Parts: sequence; C-alpha cells; structure tokens
Amino acid sequence: MSQSSKLAVDAMGGDHAPDAIIAGLDVAAERQPRAFFIIFGDEARLIPLLAAAKHLAGRYELRHCSETVAGDMKPTVALRLRDSSMRRAIDAVLAGDAQGVVSAGNTGALLALSKIVLKSLKGIDRPAMAATAPSAKGDVVMLDLGLNVVYDARNLVEFALMGMIFARIVLGLPSPSFGLLNIGSEEGKGDDTLRNAAATLRDGPFSEQFYGFVEGHDIAAGTVDVVVTDGFTGNVALKTGEGALKLVGDLLRRVFNAGPLAKMGYIFARGALKRLKETLDPRRYNGAVLLGLNGVVVKSHGGTDALGFAHAVDVALDMVAHDFNSHIADALAAMDRAILSDEPVIHSNG
Amino acid sequence: MSQSSKLAVDAMGGDHAPDAIIAGLDVAAERQPRAFFIIFGDEARLIPLLAAAKHLAGRYELRHCSETVAGDMKPTVALRLRDSSMRRAIDAVLAGDAQGVVSAGNTGALLALSKIVLKSLKGIDRPAMAATAPSAKGDVVMLDLGLNVVYDARNLVEFALMGMIFARIVLGLPSPSFGLLNIGSEEGKGDDTLRNAAATLRDGPFSEQFYGFVEGHDIAAGTVDVVVTDGFTGNVALKTGEGALKLVGDLLRRVFNAGPLAKMGYIFARGALKRLKETLDPRRYNGAVLLGLNGVVVKSHGGTDALGFAHAVDVALDMVAHDFNSHIADALAAMDRAILSDEPVIHSNG
Repeated sequence: MSQSSKLAVDAMGGDHAPDAIIAGLDVAAERQPRAFFIIFGDEARLIPLLAAAKHLAGRYELRHCSETVAGDMKPTVALRLRDSSMRRAIDAVLAGDAQGVVSAGNTGALLALSKIVLKSLKGIDRPAMAATAPSAKGDVVMLDLGLNVVYDARNLVEFALMGMIFARIVLGLPSPSFGLLNIGSEEGKGDDTLRNAAATLRDGPFSEQFYGFVEGHDIAAGTVDVVVTDGFTGNVALKTGEGALKLVGDLLRRVFNAGPLAKMGYIFARGALKRLKETLDPRRYNGAVLLGLNGVVVKSHGGTDALGFAHAVDVALDMVAHDFNSHIADALAAMDRAILSDEPVIHSNG
Repeated sequence: MSQSSKLAVDAMGGDHAPDAIIAGLDVAAERQPRAFFIIFGDEARLIPLLAAAKHLAGRYELRHCSETVAGDMKPTVALRLRDSSMRRAIDAVLAGDAQGVVSAGNTGALLALSKIVLKSLKGIDRPAMAATAPSAKGDVVMLDLGLNVVYDARNLVEFALMGMIFARIVLGLPSPSFGLLNIGSEEGKGDDTLRNAAATLRDGPFSEQFYGFVEGHDIAAGTVDVVVTDGFTGNVALKTGEGALKLVGDLLRRVFNAGPLAKMGYIFARGALKRLKETLDPRRYNGAVLLGLNGVVVKSHGGTDALGFAHAVDVALDMVAHDFNSHIADALAAMDRAILSDEPVIHSNG
C-alpha cells in the first residue's frame, strides 16, 4: 500500500458508534501500518476514545462535525444536513483530501449523498452495490444489491466489469470468472435484457472469464467468482442466502443443547465447529461497496462491532491502494473498443 | 380423505424410474389407505415391480404406454408424443378418470403439457408453481418459482390467494399469513406492480392475513407462511436458499471429519444432528405443485428416491381430497366482489 492511502471515516454512523467505529479503526490501523484516517464526528465523544486507541496515535486527523445522520432518517432529510459526519466525510473525498470513505450509518442516506456529491465515474451509467458472500470455493462477489431496480443490458455489462475488478483487487484473484444470474443455464433462458448482456459479454474482451448464465444454487456452490444481477434480484438473493445460513446456525445451537449427549458432542467438536462459524461469520462479509462513483465508498453494517468495521476499512484501503477506479476505466475502454469494432465501417467520400 | 381420491401416476419420469416411483407409491399407499392409483408406463417393466409392492395390491390400475418423455427432451418434442406415460397421465385428469397427476419427469414438458391439456382454472390468468421450504417457524410456501417471468399486479394477487389456500390445505394452517417479496418492508419500496398488488391485498377480503412486504431473510425466518413473488425472483431465491443449506451441510460434514476429537463429537451428537438433517431434508420439500390449472399437478424432483416421491404423492392426495380448486374459486370470487365494490357506482337514467 502506498504511503498516501487516506480514508475519510464517518465515526458517528451505526448502532454502536462511535465506540465500535474507533475500536475497529484501531484494529485496522494495526493491520495496515501505512494508512491514514480523517475522522469525522463529535469531538467531545471522540477525543477520549481516540486517546485510548494505541495504533491510531499520530495517524489520524479529527474534524469536528455538529450533526449526525440518524439511522432512521429519510435520505431527503439527511441531504439537508451540511455538517453531518457522513456528509463531511464524503465531501473530503470530493475535495481530494481522502481517496475513500467508510460509514456504518444510514444506508439510504449514504447512497444518496455519495451519488449526489461524488457522481458516477465517467462511462458508468449506474453505480452498483456489491458485497461478498461465502461459497464452497471461497468468497463470491455479488452485485447489484439494490441500487438498480430498473436496468438495461449495458448496466449489467458494467456491473460485470466492476464486479470482476473488485474480485481481482479485493479477493486477489488474478482472473476472476463471472456469470449472469438467471433461472436456467441454457442460452435461451431469461428475458432480452439478460440475453443481450450475455451476448455482449461473450463477444467482449473478457469472454474467457465469462461463464454464461448461473442459477441461485451456483452462488453458494462457488461456480463463479462474481455473480452479476439486477438490484432487485441481487438484494433478495443475498438476504435469502443470509437467512438460510442464520437458520442453520440457530438450529445447530438448538441441536447441541438438546441433551447431555449432544452437549458432550459439542465439547469434543468445539474446535471444528468454531472454524465453521468463522468461515460463515457475517462479519467477514461486512462491507458492501458502492462501485462506479468518483471515489471509494464502503458501507459497513449498521449493527457492526469493531471487527466488522475493521474489515470494511480493510476493503476500502485495498481499493484505494490499488487505484480501483483506474482499472474500471481501463476495462470499460477495452469493452467499448470491442463493441465499436463490431459496428459496420462507414466509408465517407465527402 | 374420500373413497374416490384417484391419482394418475407417470411411472416412467425421473432418474430412478420406474423403481423409485413404484417403491414410493407403495410407501404412500400404506400411509393413505383410501387412495387409488392409475399407473402409466411400460407394462413389461412395471408388472414385476407392482407384484412386489405389497400395499398397492388391488389399489391400482395399470395402463400401458409405448413412449417415455426423456429428461432432456425439449417440451416442443414431448408435446408430439401422444402415447407417453406423462401425456397419458395428464389426459386421464382431463378425462375425469383421476383428479390429479404426479410425475418426476421432465419439468418443462410437464408444465407445457399440463397447461395445454388442462388449461387455466376459470378466473386465473396465469398458473403458478409453488413449493415449500424450511423456516425457523415451520414450512413456508413460496410461489411463483419460474413459470411467470412476465407478470402484473393481478397475477401477484392470484398467486397470493393460491399460495394461501395451499398453505391451508397442505400445511394445515387455519389462517396462513402471506407477504409480497420486496427489497424493503416500507410501503413505498418496490415498483408499481408490487405496490399495486399490495394495495389490492390490503383492501381485499384477506387483508388480516396479509403481512405486507417481506425481504429475502424473512423466508428462512418464517415471518410469513406464504412468500409471494414473480417467477424469476422466486426461482432465484428458492435455489439460493437451497444452495446455502447445502453449503452448510457440506461444511458440517467436513467439520466432523476434521480430526479425532471432532469425530468423537459427532458420535455423541449424532442423534441430535440426525434430527437437524431430517428437519432440512430436501426430500421433505419434494413436490413442487402447479396451481391454477383444471386439475391437481404435482412435480416430484427428477432425482427423487422412493421417500421423496411418496411425499409428492401425499401432497397431491391432500389437494385432491380437500378439493383444492374449489377453494381457489371461492377465494377469487371473494376478492373480485371486494374489488368490484370499490368501483364507483354508475347510475343510469337511460
């Protein structure tokens, strides 16, 4: 990571802010010794927390903000707060003081503010929200997760490129595979939008990484590294998968409390079960990212603890350090050259 | 169940047909002593199997068919086979010989044949496919699961009524709750189609059972008894949830093989873990149903074993015994009366 990785941090967003935010930042600071943080929030509350954070010493700048975006505030209301910690943190990215922002605050407000302040990256029609989920073959990237309920084939193609580069940088996969989520894997399945997006991806410069259509069960199977879909389907699928994992976790807890034999079994299997729990730990999947804006924007779960927030900070720092957006621009340019070269050449005699 | 419950059975569909089909039928026959089966398929293969099925003795009629719909056959090809076991079984429902049909064969062919031969129930614009899934509060009904990628608000309302009656009859819930799957639970979320369907359901005769919008994680949480959605979203959500459950199952198997301590733990917890496995056993959720046709149509998983097929037969017999379709007609009539009474009254002086 370069010396200059600077992250703007909304210290007041989330159910356990600012305590969990500063504690999480301290964990991340230890793991990422060259990162620098600009921390936005209420000085009176933050100064004592920062004094106790040993890895942050000398590696942050505190900027006092008089307002906080409440968790249940409507985005339209949040937009009017000029001195909120969330707004000021995003403004710092626009001003170039920081290259990215992390917040555990109100999702709707963060999306609205980021889109309005930072605006879409050149060549990106619609930004998308991405997150990682566990699979049998390691982490899988999913997008979009709710920003785009209305979308076209070009949007899906852009989501695919952004997700693929996210998997390259954040998951460290040299050549991630990606697939379009559909209700069958045969070429004729789905609507025109899906079929047109598939045709573009099949003919484009990343065709070797394009798997084709995938189905719901392919997400947890890890059939592809990146699952591309519209915001409605992606949101439902991600939450359905999370719900199913939670169900089994709850049932397992009940199973091992079902009697003395089961409890004895738990004692013996505890180490192995703990590793399973860690594999599926929702905190590892904390940190949804907004892709396609002029700046890195990472949303941590509102209910996150320090470890979850630290993970979100890690993701943001990875994206900043690897200059995420320049890779998006390169991929878009390659895709557009491929599409343009498909057009019939018009000879002008004029 | 009335004496007259007659079920047409496609004995040749599915990966383990006809052996698993006849074995499953025998299990169901023991559980349902008053059911009668009309069995369609290859006599030469079926006669020895039927001779060995002790609970079926005297309770079936065998009708020989010269053709079989292959698992990978295109529906358009399957439609041309006039003497396939699948076609003849569906024809028997049309002829009134049986009140329902069960097949573990080619899904696309079963859908196409059922729709063409049996046609939609009066008042139902589009039939839907439903299935049950496990949740923290018992089984949950989900529909549509792939038949309707194009749909409108009226279709969603019809799906809701059909799913609600399915939950009443097959799950035995006196007053099942139902919700519309969306990406947020607030009233303004989703597109016009979802909002219009919600408005109709809120004002209709089943408004007390209508929960409103639910999200992906509500499926496994069991927030409602019936989750209503379009075919694309439902198909993706069901398969995503199944995939997540399979992932944990696979990980658990690995966990308990991770070393001697874990294996010891498994031995102690075996009974409790077995109950967990039974709770989530995919065979219990075997049997997708086609709702909204003139006749009961149940699709068993292609890879089903005898127990899975027996469960699908149970579902079909439940629906037949309770005259499922007459309840749909009643619910539709109640809904239409409510909608009509909302219309402004036009006074004619003509």
